[in-house]
Amino acid sequence: MIYMKRILKIQSLLRRRKLGALLISQPHNRRYISGYTAADHDIGESSGVLLIPADGYPLLLTDSRFTIQAEKEAENFKVLLYRKGLPALLKELLPDLGITSLAFESHYMLHSMAEKLKTMLGVIDVTLYPVVDIVEKMRLIKNEEEIKALKRSVLLNEKVFLECYKNLSGSETEIDIALAIEAAMRRYGAESPSFETIVATGERSALPHAVPGNVVIQKNASLMIDMGLILDGYCSDMTRTFVPGKADKKFITIHRLVRKAQLAGIAAVRAGVSAASVDKAARTVIADGGYKDHFGHALGHGVGLAVHEAPGLSSRNRKHLKSGMIITVEPGIYLPGWGGVRLENMVVVREDGCEVLNEDTTWLDI
Amino acid sequence: MIYMKRILKIQSLLRRRKLGALLISQPHNRRYISGYTAADHDIGESSGVLLIPADGYPLLLTDSRFTIQAEKEAENFKVLLYRKGLPALLKELLPDLGITSLAFESHYMLHSMAEKLKTMLGVIDVTLYPVVDIVEKMRLIKNEEEIKALKRSVLLNEKVFLECYKNLSGSETEIDIALAIEAAMRRYGAESPSFETIVATGERSALPHAVPGNVVIQKNASLMIDMGLILDGYCSDMTRTFVPGKADKKFITIHRLVRKAQLAGIAAVRAGVSAASVDKAARTVIADGGYKDHFGHALGHGVGLAVHEAPGLSSRNRKHLKSGMIITVEPGIYLPGWGGVRLENMVVVREDGCEVLNEDTTWLDI
Repeated sequence: MIYMKRILKIQSLLRRRKLGALLISQPHNRRYISGYTAADHDIGESSGVLLIPADGYPLLLTDSRFTIQAEKEAENFKVLLYRKGLPALLKELLPDLGITSLAFESHYMLHSMAEKLKTMLGVIDVTLYPVVDIVEKMRLIKNEEEIKALKRSVLLNEKVFLECYKNLSGSETEIDIALAIEAAMRRYGAESPSFETIVATGERSALPHAVPGNVVIQKNASLMIDMGLILDGYCSDMTRTFVPGKADKKFITIHRLVRKAQLAGIAAVRAGVSAASVDKAARTVIADGGYKDHFGHALGHGVGLAVHEAPGLSSRNRKHLKSGMIITVEPGIYLPGWGGVRLENMVVVREDGCEVLNEDTTWLDI
Repeated sequence: MIYMKRILKIQSLLRRRKLGALLISQPHNRRYISGYTAADHDIGESSGVLLIPADGYPLLLTDSRFTIQAEKEAENFKVLLYRKGLPALLKELLPDLGITSLAFESHYMLHSMAEKLKTMLGVIDVTLYPVVDIVEKMRLIKNEEEIKALKRSVLLNEKVFLECYKNLSGSETEIDIALAIEAAMRRYGAESPSFETIVATGERSALPHAVPGNVVIQKNASLMIDMGLILDGYCSDMTRTFVPGKADKKFITIHRLVRKAQLAGIAAVRAGVSAASVDKAARTVIADGGYKDHFGHALGHGVGLAVHEAPGLSSRNRKHLKSGMIITVEPGIYLPGWGGVRLENMVVVREDGCEVLNEDTTWLDI
């Protein structure tokens, strides 16, 4: 039972740090530890929090809208409902559980909620401890089950991409394409896109985070599609850049350079190397090709329950990669007034190299 | 100039409270005060904050991804970029501006960010003051320009609903319908849906917040559609419940009772009455009809830049309605195993009553 194992890991960590319990409010962390899939409408409207005591039974605290889902999904948890809000329930509950110190996720707790907790818990002599990234650190390394889930997410994303690619008529707008992609994702069983689909034609593709517009795609210019979906909780993220009509020499030259940089990045991935060294391997190829100043973002990022998570593959991240991490490798060249080319695949870090999760090769080796 | 007027109002309030400046991080508040339309990816990845000093020029602090948009949209603001994060920029900036006390929105600031600010600003002797709902209170009363914008949003939403309604073949799934609605919204120029579209057939409509599923709609049972969009920043929200085939007697009886409750609610809306009294007017009709225990949610909520905002039309809200507020009136009856009926329109509170923003009457008076 994977969830039980994760709960026990947190409990042992709490005992080591002499903390009475941990409150988990971040939705991905909550799902990772409990299996409870509800999302938050927003941070001010939570679908519940986990209360993991250092010893004893873990609890899921939520409201009546989520009772059925919580009890069904979070099998290892006792579900309790708050009627007058979380602080009031904790004030009743913690003395019964003998908890006198409570850690909470400082990076996913509103200041106003922390103040309410402090006031309520002050009355019963419970001390609050802000912590960060405890569960995020556990999420860094994926087990084989998670890697399989991520692979399924990648393959479904490719299926949607290929369907869209084959159906292109050339008279669509960017928005038409983005909508068709997102509709296909949901039709094939994805929970949702993992981020807002990027479809950018011609010089509009020079912006790394273009928003699809009411613009008909240009037949003989770059078309950049950056898309991802969530399947069983796990995210995918891929980018392809191609020309719907005929690619000119400049496009082919730049595209080949980006692909060369991507392959250099992928070749550099291995457990034990720094994230920065992988970024550098790809960046050097682009710099040597003469486009040093036109690759402004990091080479990649971790992917898991969140589409952007640690580790960041940036020039500043000196941390070492570890086996079981999943990262994107996505170099790009962006030329204002002309357009951009970005190519993105996802890979699993292994002891002796890496494994590319993508199988699609459309317009990769041209 | 509406933005200038709003800035001056905040500045006068800051002087009255003897505060040096207000930091505005909540995205709707930011847009309301500045005209800057960017959304936040999430609370941990902000598109910028406003710094309104009690005296002098207002500033918009953001990062390089948003420079062009910020300068174009926030005309009254000087745009400054942070390269090492917001706390570091404020540490440089506040002494230059002579600001020694800084209010921030406690309800839209992460605890971890507040801690960073406290540490950074402690060094330069600036005191932090958590505040809540300063801008939200201003947003409660809509001016005539805003009412017109909300009316346009309502009418576009109705146009999308009617298109979908007329195209129903009866063989669609809930998801098909939701996707067609959301695609039409974007095709007609909406920024996005204002919330996840609800399409629920038969007994599935007994859940007030049903998620569309891969389920073909039932011809002779309830079909509940709750939908809204964002147009020029302003939200709409409407619900219709109907039967694609032939409605039976029970459906007609319950539907008429809900409509009677809605009309009673609308008739009770007027500046000066309590929110609770409007809720009661509708709730009494449903209770008298024998369904007291089957209307579990509040009668309505405010709508503006946010789709859910104050005032809540609940039995506990004793506050009085004021002219210029915009609220939904949405009673419902939900019967487990059978289904639900909810009808929702938006109205503007006026001195002597209210004005219904909706024009569509599909399946309202049956």
